[in-house]
Amino acid sequence: MLEELKQIVCEANLALARSGLVAGTFGNVSGVDRDGGHVVTKPSGVAYDRMRPEQMIVVSLEDGRVVEGDLCPSGDTPAHVKLYRAFEEIGGVAHTRSVCATAWAQARREIPPLGTTHADAFHGPIPLTRLLHTGEIAKDYELNIGRVIAERFAEIEPMQIQAVLVADHGPFTWGYSPQEAVTAAADLEQVARLASETLRVEPYPVMMSRELLDKHYNRRHGEDAR
Amino acid sequence: MLEELKQIVCEANLALARSGLVAGTFGNVSGVDRDGGHVVTKPSGVAYDRMRPEQMIVVSLEDGRVVEGDLCPSGDTPAHVKLYRAFEEIGGVAHTRSVCATAWAQARREIPPLGTTHADAFHGPIPLTRLLHTGEIAKDYELNIGRVIAERFAEIEPMQIQAVLVADHGPFTWGYSPQEAVTAAADLEQVARLASETLRVEPYPVMMSRELLDKHYNRRHGEDAR
Amino acid sequence: MLEELKQIVCEANLALARSGLVAGTFGNVSGVDRDGGHVVTKPSGVAYDRMRPEQMIVVSLEDGRVVEGDLCPSGDTPAHVKLYRAFEEIGGVAHTRSVCATAWAQARREIPPLGTTHADAFHGPIPLTRLLHTGEIAKDYELNIGRVIAERFAEIEPMQIQAVLVADHGPFTWGYSPQEAVTAAADLEQVARLASETLRVEPYPVMMSRELLDKHYNRRHGEDAR
Amino acid sequence: MLEELKQIVCEANLALARSGLVAGTFGNVSGVDRDGGHVVTKPSGVAYDRMRPEQMIVVSLEDGRVVEGDLCPSGDTPAHVKLYRAFEEIGGVAHTRSVCATAWAQARREIPPLGTTHADAFHGPIPLTRLLHTGEIAKDYELNIGRVIAERFAEIEPMQIQAVLVADHGPFTWGYSPQEAVTAAADLEQVARLASETLRVEPYPVMMSRELLDKHYNRRHGEDAR
Repeated sequence: MLEELKQIVCEANLALARSGLVAGTFGNVSGVDRDGGHVVTKPSGVAYDRMRPEQMIVVSLEDGRVVEGDLCPSGDTPAHVKLYRAFEEIGGVAHTRSVCATAWAQARREIPPLGTTHADAFHGPIPLTRLLHTGEIAKDYELNIGRVIAERFAEIEPMQIQAVLVADHGPFTWGYSPQEAVTAAADLEQVARLASETLRVEPYPVMMSRELLDKHYNRRHGEDAR
Repeated sequence: MLEELKQIVCEANLALARSGLVAGTFGNVSGVDRDGGHVVTKPSGVAYDRMRPEQMIVVSLEDGRVVEGDLCPSGDTPAHVKLYRAFEEIGGVAHTRSVCATAWAQARREIPPLGTTHADAFHGPIPLTRLLHTGEIAKDYELNIGRVIAERFAEIEPMQIQAVLVADHGPFTWGYSPQEAVTAAADLEQVARLASETLRVEPYPVMMSRELLDKHYNRRHGEDAR
Repeated sequence: MLEELKQIVCEANLALARSGLVAGTFGNVSGVDRDGGHVVTKPSGVAYDRMRPEQMIVVSLEDGRVVEGDLCPSGDTPAHVKLYRAFEEIGGVAHTRSVCATAWAQARREIPPLGTTHADAFHGPIPLTRLLHTGEIAKDYELNIGRVIAERFAEIEPMQIQAVLVADHGPFTWGYSPQEAVTAAADLEQVARLASETLRVEPYPVMMSRELLDKHYNRRHGEDAR
Repeated sequence: MLEELKQIVCEANLALARSGLVAGTFGNVSGVDRDGGHVVTKPSGVAYDRMRPEQMIVVSLEDGRVVEGDLCPSGDTPAHVKLYRAFEEIGGVAHTRSVCATAWAQARREIPPLGTTHADAFHGPIPLTRLLHTGEIAKDYELNIGRVIAERFAEIEPMQIQAVLVADHGPFTWGYSPQEAVTAAADLEQVARLASETLRVEPYPVMMSRELLDKHYNRRHGEDAR
C-alpha cells in the first residue's frame, strides 16, 4: 500500500542524509496520507546507504500503530503523528540533530530573526518548546514531544514558521510535503548558523524590523510571491 | 543580443556556485554593457546545475526593465542596476549570503582591517549601510538597497573598497568585470571569517596601521603593483 | 597469532582515519584477547593508507611487553593496557585528538550533558582526569595516563560513560569491541562540538534533567532498549 | 641549475595547496642550497594547478637577487632569504594565511601551549613579532618582516619552535627541508585551531606544565625520540 508515498518518504530521507544535517542513522522524515488516515515513516536503525522504499513503515494517523512493515518505525514516530493531527495543513515532518539548530535547542533560546535570510524562510523567531515535566518524560515521552510542540504553536500558524526547537533535544520541521520538510530543516540550520556567527561578532544583536521581516517573507510566500 | 556578455555572466554565476559562497538558488552576478545601455543578469529561481547562457536576462541600464529574456530577472536586479548607475567604473556586481560576511551584516558592524589579508583586497573597513526606513521597505525595496549602498559610498571610491554590507541583509561586491565581482565576494568572505576568528581570540582587536594597510593595498592595486 | 583480532583492530584504525577524528598518523585503536592475555594494537608511525593487519603488534595484557611484531607499538599502548586491566568488561580502546573533545580537555572542563544527543550516547558528564604530578610525567608517563583514567572512574561504570578527557591531552574512548571504541570517539566529538556550539549561544547553559538523561540513555542502552 | 631542489620546492608548494592552508595563489614555500649560496622559491601569481618545477626561481642567498627564472619571485622572498641567513640550520621556509594561525597574528597574541598536541610539535608558545615601524614598512618591507622574525628569535632556538606569527600579518614556518616547513605550517594551524576552540570553552585557560611540555616535545624530537 501507499507505494508512491513510500517512494517519496524514502527519497526525502535520503535527501536528508545527503544534506549533511544528520550523522549515522539519526534523523527521520515522514509523510502523511490524510485520505486514508496513514503516516509513512522511516524504519528504525537502517543505514541510509541501504534504505529502500519497501522498508518504509505505515502507521495509523489515528493512534500511531503499525499498519504495515516488518521493521520498527523510527522511535520519534509518535511525535510525527501528533504533529500531523495538530497541524492539519502539513504533509511532511522532519527531525534532525543538525549542529547549530541543536545548539540553540540546548541553549534553550529561540532563534531571533536577525536578517533577510531568516525572513526569506521563516515568518518570525524560531519558537522553543517548554521542557517536559517528569511525568511527561516517564510515560508517552515521544508523543509528549509532539504535544509540547503543538502547545507552543497554539497562537502561531505552522505554515508561517515551519520549524521548532524542542528544548534540550533538537529541531523538528515540516511542510506541505516530506521534501518541503527537508528543505525547512536545511533552511533552519542555515539560519541557526548565521545567528550563531552573528553572536560571535555582536553578543547583543538587535532583531530585524517587523517591516523587513514581512517584506522578505511575503516576497517569497505571500500572495504577491514570485 | 549580447551573447558574449551572457556567456561571461553565466560563467560568473557558475563560479559563484562552485565557490561555496551561496546555497540553493541564492546569489546572483550581473554584468553591464555601458555602450548599449544594458545589464545582463541571472534569471530568478533557476538551479545552478541547469543554468545556460541563453537563459540570462537583459534589462535596461536606464530603468531596469526587461529588454530580452523569457524568465524573470533575479529579484535583486534593481539594486544591481542602481549600482551600475552610481559607480561608473564598475563592470560587474555580485550578491551572496556567504556566512561570515552575512553575520557581520546581521551584527550591523563594519569589518575593520585587522591584517594584511584584508589590506591585500580592500583599502579600508568594509562599510555598512544604514537600515532602510519603513517607506523604503514598502516601495521600491530592491532599488532602495542600491540607493543606500550608493549613499554609503558618497565619500568612498568604489574601486578602492569593492564590497559593502547591507545591514540585516548581506554583502554586495563589484569589480571591473563579473568575474572580478565574484573574486571580491570570495575575498570578502575570507576577510570576514578571519575577523570573526580574531574576535574569538581577542574581543577588542586593534586595527592595523594606516601605513601597513596602504602598503599591502598599493602593492597589489597601486601604480607600483606587481 | 590472533589473525582475526589483528584484522578487526586494523579495520578499526582505518575506520578512525576515515572518520576525520585524527590527522596524520595520530590516533590509535586496540583490541584485547582476554582468554590469551594479549592486546593487539597499532604500530607507531605507520601511515593509515599503508596499514595492513599483519603489521599490528601483539603485547602482553599483563605487563605490556611486545609478544609479536616487527614495528614499535603505538606510544600510548601502556595506557590502553592499563585500561583493559582496570575495566574488565571492555574489548577495545581508542585514542584521538579530535578537535572539540581535545579543546574541552585543554580547557580542563568536563562536558556537561546538555541535550538528548549526549544522553543517547553517554550516561552523564564526560569525566576529566586530574593533571599528572611531576613524578608521574617523568616516569611511566603513558602507564600513568591509564592510571589517572582508572582513578577517575573509581565510582563510574565504564560502560555507562565510554569516554574520558585526559586533562591537557585529549580523549580516550572504549567499548565492547574496537569498532565500538571508534563509535564512542565519534559520538564524543559530536557531543563536544554541540556543547561548544551551545556555549557560543548561551555562556551559562543549564544541564539537562536527570530524568531526560536517563530516558534517552536507557532507551538505547537499558534493558528496554530497542 | 638546482633541478632537484626545484622539484622539491615545487612539490612542497603543491603539498601546501593540497593541505587547504592557502587560498587562491596565496602562500609560498622555498628551499635553500647552502653550498651554492642559492634559494629556490615559488614564482609570483602562478596558479597551483599549473605550477611546474622549471618555473621555480633561483635567487641569491646573499642579497636575494634573481639568478635564474623568467617570472618574478614570490613577493615574500626577501623575508625567506633573511630567515635562511638568520637561522643557519634550516633548509625550508613556508608562508601561509591559514585561518586560525592568522587570527592569532591579527589578535596580536602568542599561542600558549595548552596541551600535548602543541607540545608534540612546538617546544613553547608560538612567538609573535613586534609591529613594524613606519619606516620599516615604507622601505625594504619584506626584508624587514624577516628581520623582526629573526629579532624575535634572538633567544629562541629556531628548530625548537619552527613557527612564528608576524603581527597583523600571518604565520611563517620552517624546517630542515621545504617539506618539513609545510608540515610545520599544518601543525601550527592545528595547534592554533585547538587553542581557539579551547578559548571558546574556557576564556582563561591555564598553560600546560613545563614538565608535560618537555615530556611530549622530547619524546618526539629529543635524544630519546622514538
